[in-house]
Amino acid sequence: MVIDCFAFFKEMKNKMYSKIDTKIIEELGAIVGQTNVQTTKDILKAYGHDETEDFVFLPEVVVIPNTVGEVSKIMRLCNQQKIPVTPRGAGTGLAGGALPVCGGILLSMERFNKILNIDEQNLQITTETAVITEVLQNAVKEKGLYYPPDPASKGTCYIGGNINTNSGGPHAVKYGVVKDYVLNLEVVLPNGEVIWTGANTLKNSTGYNLTQLMVGSEGTLGIVTKAVLKLIPQPSQSLLLLIPFESPESACAAVSAIFRAGITPSCLEFMERRAIEYALVYLGDMKMMIPDEVQAHLLLEVDGYYIESLYEDCEQIAKVVEGFGAEEILFADNDAQKRELWRLRKCVGRAVKKGTIYKEEDTVVPRAELPKLLKGVKMIGQNYGFESVCYGHAGDGNLHVNIVKGELTEQQWNEELPKAITEIFELVKSLGGTISGEHGIGWVQRPYMPIVFGEVELGLMSAIKNVFDPNNILNPQKIF
Amino acid sequence: MVIDCFAFFKEMKNKMYSKIDTKIIEELGAIVGQTNVQTTKDILKAYGHDETEDFVFLPEVVVIPNTVGEVSKIMRLCNQQKIPVTPRGAGTGLAGGALPVCGGILLSMERFNKILNIDEQNLQITTETAVITEVLQNAVKEKGLYYPPDPASKGTCYIGGNINTNSGGPHAVKYGVVKDYVLNLEVVLPNGEVIWTGANTLKNSTGYNLTQLMVGSEGTLGIVTKAVLKLIPQPSQSLLLLIPFESPESACAAVSAIFRAGITPSCLEFMERRAIEYALVYLGDMKMMIPDEVQAHLLLEVDGYYIESLYEDCEQIAKVVEGFGAEEILFADNDAQKRELWRLRKCVGRAVKKGTIYKEEDTVVPRAELPKLLKGVKMIGQNYGFESVCYGHAGDGNLHVNIVKGELTEQQWNEELPKAITEIFELVKSLGGTISGEHGIGWVQRPYMPIVFGEVELGLMSAIKNVFDPNNILNPQKIF
Repeated sequence: MVIDCFAFFKEMKNKMYSKIDTKIIEELGAIVGQTNVQTTKDILKAYGHDETEDFVFLPEVVVIPNTVGEVSKIMRLCNQQKIPVTPRGAGTGLAGGALPVCGGILLSMERFNKILNIDEQNLQITTETAVITEVLQNAVKEKGLYYPPDPASKGTCYIGGNINTNSGGPHAVKYGVVKDYVLNLEVVLPNGEVIWTGANTLKNSTGYNLTQLMVGSEGTLGIVTKAVLKLIPQPSQSLLLLIPFESPESACAAVSAIFRAGITPSCLEFMERRAIEYALVYLGDMKMMIPDEVQAHLLLEVDGYYIESLYEDCEQIAKVVEGFGAEEILFADNDAQKRELWRLRKCVGRAVKKGTIYKEEDTVVPRAELPKLLKGVKMIGQNYGFESVCYGHAGDGNLHVNIVKGELTEQQWNEELPKAITEIFELVKSLGGTISGEHGIGWVQRPYMPIVFGEVELGLMSAIKNVFDPNNILNPQKIF
Repeated sequence: MVIDCFAFFKEMKNKMYSKIDTKIIEELGAIVGQTNVQTTKDILKAYGHDETEDFVFLPEVVVIPNTVGEVSKIMRLCNQQKIPVTPRGAGTGLAGGALPVCGGILLSMERFNKILNIDEQNLQITTETAVITEVLQNAVKEKGLYYPPDPASKGTCYIGGNINTNSGGPHAVKYGVVKDYVLNLEVVLPNGEVIWTGANTLKNSTGYNLTQLMVGSEGTLGIVTKAVLKLIPQPSQSLLLLIPFESPESACAAVSAIFRAGITPSCLEFMERRAIEYALVYLGDMKMMIPDEVQAHLLLEVDGYYIESLYEDCEQIAKVVEGFGAEEILFADNDAQKRELWRLRKCVGRAVKKGTIYKEEDTVVPRAELPKLLKGVKMIGQNYGFESVCYGHAGDGNLHVNIVKGELTEQQWNEELPKAITEIFELVKSLGGTISGEHGIGWVQRPYMPIVFGEVELGLMSAIKNVFDPNNILNPQKIF
């Protein structure tokens, strides 16, 4: 679905923003060089989508700066001229945060791809923000250090996108999400001013926490050009277990019990049977027999420095999950086995989406509420007649719900499904949860924000946006 | 020093705010009951100071609400009538955040002292905010759970004050500071509206992080009435080491090396020789011989679930610190010994302050910069002729610098010392650090904010303040 701006946004855009004329294109060229200002249809199309369903919004121009000074000049120009700017990292977002829905400039950060310093004394990394997450992880691993946040897209996504959506990933359950690792950010504000948000310290009680305000703000408050991130020592040992259950609900119930036993796994992932089935078809080359009675799995990792204590943890976990009817546990203690199990888990999202029309919801609840959430999602699916494939970070209570179009009509998909999603999100809210755990709100979840926040909270957020961006030029029409 | 509003603030107050007349006192009485509206001089004086040096600012009235509805009504009234309100927890703050510098209402939160729910399934606690930190810690410990942040004042301070200053404490080095445990907050805004800032979830990517914006905002954006805090399993084992060094610099240098060896201690505290000497005098009943050549100590704790792995950690630590000339290590493995060592460390602040005129600075730098910071502080002290006693959370790079008036004249203390403090803070900034790690800015550090933030950053903070509190009635004249 290629959208050359919705009619509504086109009209709004004409009212609120300037057109990009040849003079502006020339000025942009003078800032970043003509080759980094692109207007051909193919390129506009390539930068007009992220990984969110099949949306494509065409920007008017793609600009690819290389320095913070260039970004600053671009923003000053756009702020003066009232030109909308949509910053873009690797384009792996799942909520449409990088879609240029108001046209204007698509600002690709791809050239900010240098790691600037790995500080082995202070266990910190200073990096530009278009470094691929896995590249950063591998670079610090070589020094015996660890940067834990690892979204499923870590092989392609940028650290800047991770910061802007406050990403998590499987290891968040023990090590926390991106916000727990961001110490300080260099940010270009919508008016072109450049700030650092904090200090390179582990503790900071010095004024309002601008750093944490930027994290998860989805490129609506400023453009993050550099980040100072906390690192920790790399754990040297890990064990991985695949634990089968007869019902998804008992798998989810076991999750909470594992923590109650005093164990904090380094990963605790949930996959319902259909999720693994999709993954096995997608991979093609992996052999795995799932007995008929097995309806869900937990993938559980423990890590640390002393292998003996990890074996003790696993023994305790085995006892706990037995109480929830766990079947025979598959125990992976060598790298090849671990890699295979992770390959399986990590492809689930892609597997479900391949060749299907789908919507992905990023629900999160307090972890003990997972069984209720899962049951509710399935019941809502029955009522509306859709298949949902559920998997995700059970240890955090973060359940990804992939809704597959399947046999639904266009009318059902476009008009009925939003009602079903509303019901899912209302359930999430009633369980103490929220509508996005790690993907962000971006473009596609915007209509659902009033389910979790009232007018007062949304009013505060809008007013904060207005403080940073009074002309509403930076990633407009996102979040709110 | 009892101050019935500085002349400057009195004048400003007369311009900006209304006087509290009998009609307002009556209205306040109708909201909270007459007995909870106090205007006698003794009571005004008792609530007119916190633990910040010897400042006393008299409020016009002390109001002691009991419910969120009452706080809401008070704020609505004050917002309409333009009356300044200074919220107060236990009054243990060290930066004057709870000083009613503009007079008006001192809003004591002391009756918000109930723990509402310890959720053992989700490892969360929901609490009112005037619960004493140690009371909360003990309540969750009884359930096998752990709330790590433990400022030195934990026996008297409130959790709400901890949230408002983003407190740390010795265990922050492994477990993080308050911000890492706050999931969701109930907040009364300056206009009386009541909001929840987030969701009761471990992950959240749903709009701007209002929760983190509130943490550390020192009661200037809203009044926190309830908090949902994350808990973790209580570690069952710990070992404590007191490690003597011949120079403070080598003690500080060892800190960074310990982390580089892959060990994350659960505490890593620094005390220079004078700090321990003050503490021993203060305690009176503790026998401890410090050899002449020992000039500093590290107090180091490791914790976990498996005692064998902790012994292994300690062996490794011993090897590391040997390289920095560590003398004979005192090893505490029973509770009585541990209690004694902690008693020593925890009284240092009080010991230095007792009977002296002092100023306490809460510097924080990347941890490997500690030796440079310490050296710089001592050199600045030599230049200006003051004694400083340094101790604190070395693992976090958080060094408390207590400056003792001693033989300084009033003129030197009042006019020269601010220059010395400016030099210390400029050094901190140049080392990548900031001027408060865990105490906050409050009233006394306000003049130094421009050292760490430029006009643009301070402008953003002021504008955010203005979003929440356009009439500037809530804790005015703090932070900025």
